[in-house]
Formats: sequence, structure tokens, C-alpha cells
Amino acid sequence: MADFSPIRIDDPRDPRLDDFRNLNASDKKSGEQLIIAEGTLVVPRLLASPYPTRAVVGFPGKLRAIEESLSSSFSGDDAPFSVFEVSREVLKEVAGFDMHRGLVASADRLPESEELSVEALLDQLEATEGTEVTEVTECTEGASGVIAVLEGVGDHENIGSIFRNAAGLGVDAVLFGAATADPLYRRSVRVSMGHVLRLPWARFPGTTTTWQRDLQLLQSRGYEVVALTPSGNTTLREATEAARERGKKVAVMVGAEGPGLTEHAMRAADVRAVIPMARGTDSLNVATAAAIAFYEAVR
Amino acid sequence: MADFSPIRIDDPRDPRLDDFRNLNASDKKSGEQLIIAEGTLVVPRLLASPYPTRAVVGFPGKLRAIEESLSSSFSGDDAPFSVFEVSREVLKEVAGFDMHRGLVASADRLPESEELSVEALLDQLEATEGTEVTEVTECTEGASGVIAVLEGVGDHENIGSIFRNAAGLGVDAVLFGAATADPLYRRSVRVSMGHVLRLPWARFPGTTTTWQRDLQLLQSRGYEVVALTPSGNTTLREATEAARERGKKVAVMVGAEGPGLTEHAMRAADVRAVIPMARGTDSLNVATAAAIAFYEAVR
Repeated sequence: MADFSPIRIDDPRDPRLDDFRNLNASDKKSGEQLIIAEGTLVVPRLLASPYPTRAVVGFPGKLRAIEESLSSSFSGDDAPFSVFEVSREVLKEVAGFDMHRGLVASADRLPESEELSVEALLDQLEATEGTEVTEVTECTEGASGVIAVLEGVGDHENIGSIFRNAAGLGVDAVLFGAATADPLYRRSVRVSMGHVLRLPWARFPGTTTTWQRDLQLLQSRGYEVVALTPSGNTTLREATEAARERGKKVAVMVGAEGPGLTEHAMRAADVRAVIPMARGTDSLNVATAAAIAFYEAVR
Repeated sequence: MADFSPIRIDDPRDPRLDDFRNLNASDKKSGEQLIIAEGTLVVPRLLASPYPTRAVVGFPGKLRAIEESLSSSFSGDDAPFSVFEVSREVLKEVAGFDMHRGLVASADRLPESEELSVEALLDQLEATEGTEVTEVTECTEGASGVIAVLEGVGDHENIGSIFRNAAGLGVDAVLFGAATADPLYRRSVRVSMGHVLRLPWARFPGTTTTWQRDLQLLQSRGYEVVALTPSGNTTLREATEAARERGKKVAVMVGAEGPGLTEHAMRAADVRAVIPMARGTDSLNVATAAAIAFYEAVR
């Protein structure tokens, strides 16, 4: 069995720490960077994810705190990644700020060819539908029949919150339409508490103008697409109850804060539903509105 | 009628702009500072609030955008506050950062003797109960019979989000128990979108150990106190439906993220309710959990 004993590094210039340099600045760049997970809650979720971990760096006590996750990652013959032990000062010098969480890990993204397609994801979900849960582990659970569909949600913090809420409230998966921000961005990973690494997600290949076709795929698989919009003509409760009565699964569709869903998206949906709001107030934050819809749709 | 024509200021050192110096630093101080409102959405809410406005500062176009609110504030004979027109560069120099919103206002807090007591607030609400809404204005609306009670919510952003959600979903008021952060802090005002300035709130004078007595006041006024906790023995839906069936109003009680409600609070509540969560996930953010509870309780 491979050994995960940490290697001590005392020189902040050591190139083995390059994945973790100037983390705040890297958060501002966009594009295909590494996945960065922070803290004793999120790093184990990265280790258990399909993303290949490259390195784990932490204070001695923090590495001990995730010993169990590290052990199970090292259960094979080859060491799957490096584990480095550093002091608070060294980590601060490398990361560019005082990282009081004291634990950080890097991973590669999956090559595009290995990214889950929407169809493959729906196949996976169908395979778990109605499964009786016999063993209580962190990752097995029967599908709830509720998925989220995002359009134009460009804010990384909102993406992270939507994943946290979806995971917490039992949503099965998140599907992305056009102009939706990268869920594997460092801030999304952090705000989601690592759930972007656990909850299945996939991108529709189309644009906002192809919703009609994209949503037909969901409809053909038994989903009723409920578009959440202040201009809805039925309430969220009525819409989800009606879907359930017809034996349908529910796809909750939300759009960007401010502009909301495009006309294309709303026209392609089965029903436009509203969360009843008090007069003279503004719409809710998109992740909060989504949470209410998830709560209502999951039974 | 007083004239609100803005006075142009071109010198960033002008002492008439002192309320707005180094705003980010002032946000980090705690205590009894001025109330600061930012942007064309929130500043008019400050002008319409009971807090006495001291000054409004903005770019010419932004001042024009809130002309109507300014006019109605200046409808009496005396100018109630000053209005200053500045350039982007001057405001940046004063505030300490580039304030692209281009509009900011300051106000005094109310003296403690004028702060609403919990009893006075409940009296106000009772006076509006069952009111038929005849005129559609921003501020009149019949009471929903739902209030929020917070314990130990120490994060200003969470406080702001709770007010935004409470206002949006039609909650009548927010009551504060011990160890709850200042809702008039700049960041709370901003995140709440100004609703901390509109929605009635009051503090219980006691500590966490006096919940028994404090909640009895609510119970004697017809509220069922529903404590939101992962260790609840009934669901949120069952709890709120049961309260309604008994003709009760609902007080939704939430505690700090992480520790949650104290034993004192939970024991003093009428019922402990849970939001059903997926296995292997963490609790929701406190403002998100509160939003779901508000949604469920308000009918």
C-alpha cells in the first residue's frame, strides 16, 4: 500500500508548491485552470471526486484531521498525488494571504471528452430512480426526480450557492444552458462547500436560441420544465403539485439575477411559475429563489 | 417649498463630505456610526425611512435618477438635508474606492429612546392585521401574521440577506435576541437592498437565558414559535400548517450558522421544525433556511 506520509517543505519558493501561488489572483483569471479546494470539509470532497488530485498542502494538524480521506486515496499501490506539510508562514508566502483554513488541494479538470453529456447524465439518473437505499453512505441515495437548469447565471458565488442548495435539498443534478459561469472556479467550489465536485452536472451544447430542442430532451425523459419568473402565471406550488399529479419529474429552470430568463427559455418551458412576493420589494437572489423552488419540488 | 438643487463640490477635502470618508474602513469598525445607503435603489428607501437623512452625494445623472424621492423629501419649508453633486474622481478620493454606483447618503440613527420596543412593534402589527389593502403604495400592506426571530446571527451579510428575504416574502417584522449583529451596519443595509430601513424590527432586552420570558410575550399575542433546527422532530411544513389550523400566527426562529439555536431558545419555542435535507450534506446558509421558512409560513 502506498504511503501518504507528508513531505515537509520549508522553502516557499519550492516549485512543488506552484499550484498554490497567488491564489487570489488566480481566482480572478478565467479559463481552464486547476481546481482548488480549501479546508477540511471541502478537500475530502475533492479527494472523493472524479477529478484527479495533484497535491494536498496543509498545516500538520489539518493534514491529521483528514487522515481518513487521505488513507483511502492511498489504498492502491501507487501514490496518487503528493502530500506536503507546511507552516502557516510558508503557506501565507505561497498563497499570497494568510490562509487560516490551513489546508488546500489542487486537481486537474477532466478532458472535455470525459465530461458528462446531458444525455449520459440523464441515463445515470434513470438508473438510480426508485432505488431502495440499503446502505447509508455519503454518496448513495435514490434520485428525487428533481433537477436544476440554469441559464445565464454568470456569478461564481451564485453558482456555488445554487450547488450548495441543490445538494442540501436533494436535487439530483444541475444542467447548464448558455452563458453560465464556470462551476469549477475556486470561488464556486468554496461557496458550494465542495458540492460542485459531488453533484452531477452537464452543459447543453446549444445557445439560448436552442432551448426548444434542448428542453425537448428533458421533456422526452419525463420532466416537466418549470421556469421560475416574476411574470409567471401560476404559483410555484401549483406548478410543482400539478407536475407530480401527472407523474412527472421536475426540472426547475432559473435565470440570471436582474434580466431573468430569456424569452426563448420561457417559451420552451412547460409552465412559468412565480414565488409569491410582497408588493414593493425586489426579486429574491437567484440562489435563494432556486432554494425555495428545490424545497417545493423535492418531496 | 425648499429647493433641493444640488451644490457642486470639486474639492475632495471639503468637510461637508466628511460623512463619506474611507467608507470601506468605516465598515470594519463597529458601534454607533452613521447609516450609509448606496445606489439609486437603496438611497430612496433611506429617504422614506424614519432615520433623519444628513446628506446625499452623487454624480449628476444619479441625482437626477432619484429626483422624485428628493422632491418629496423637500416638500416642506425647510431643507431637511444637503444634496451635493460630485464627479467620479472626487467621490473616489473621498470614499477611498471607485464608487461606480455614484450615489450615497448618510443618516443618523434614532436615539435609543425612540427605538421601537418589541411590545410597541407588536401593537403596530395588530393594528394592521386584517386590513383590507385599498391603495397600492410601496409601504401599505396588510400584515401576513409571520415574524422572524433571530438568535446569535452575528454576520452582517446574513442579517442583510434575512431582511431582504423577509421583505420579499412578506414577513411583517424581525425581532432580535441576544448576540445578533447590528442591522444598520453599512454592509447589512446594502445586502438587504435597504429593507432594514423599511421593515420594522426590535430587540428583546434580555439575553439567551431569558428566552422563556421573551417568547411568552409572543405566545400571549397569538404567535406559535417555530424553532428551525436540524434536530427538529417535525417538518417545517407540518409545523406551519398545524399552527395555521389552530388559528395561530407564526414566529420563525433561526440561530447562527454553525452552532444553531441555543438549548434555551429551543426549549422556549413551541415546536422544533426541520427542513428535510439530503443525506451527507451540510445545513443550509441561515438566510437561505430562513427564506424557505418564510415562504412556507406566509400564505
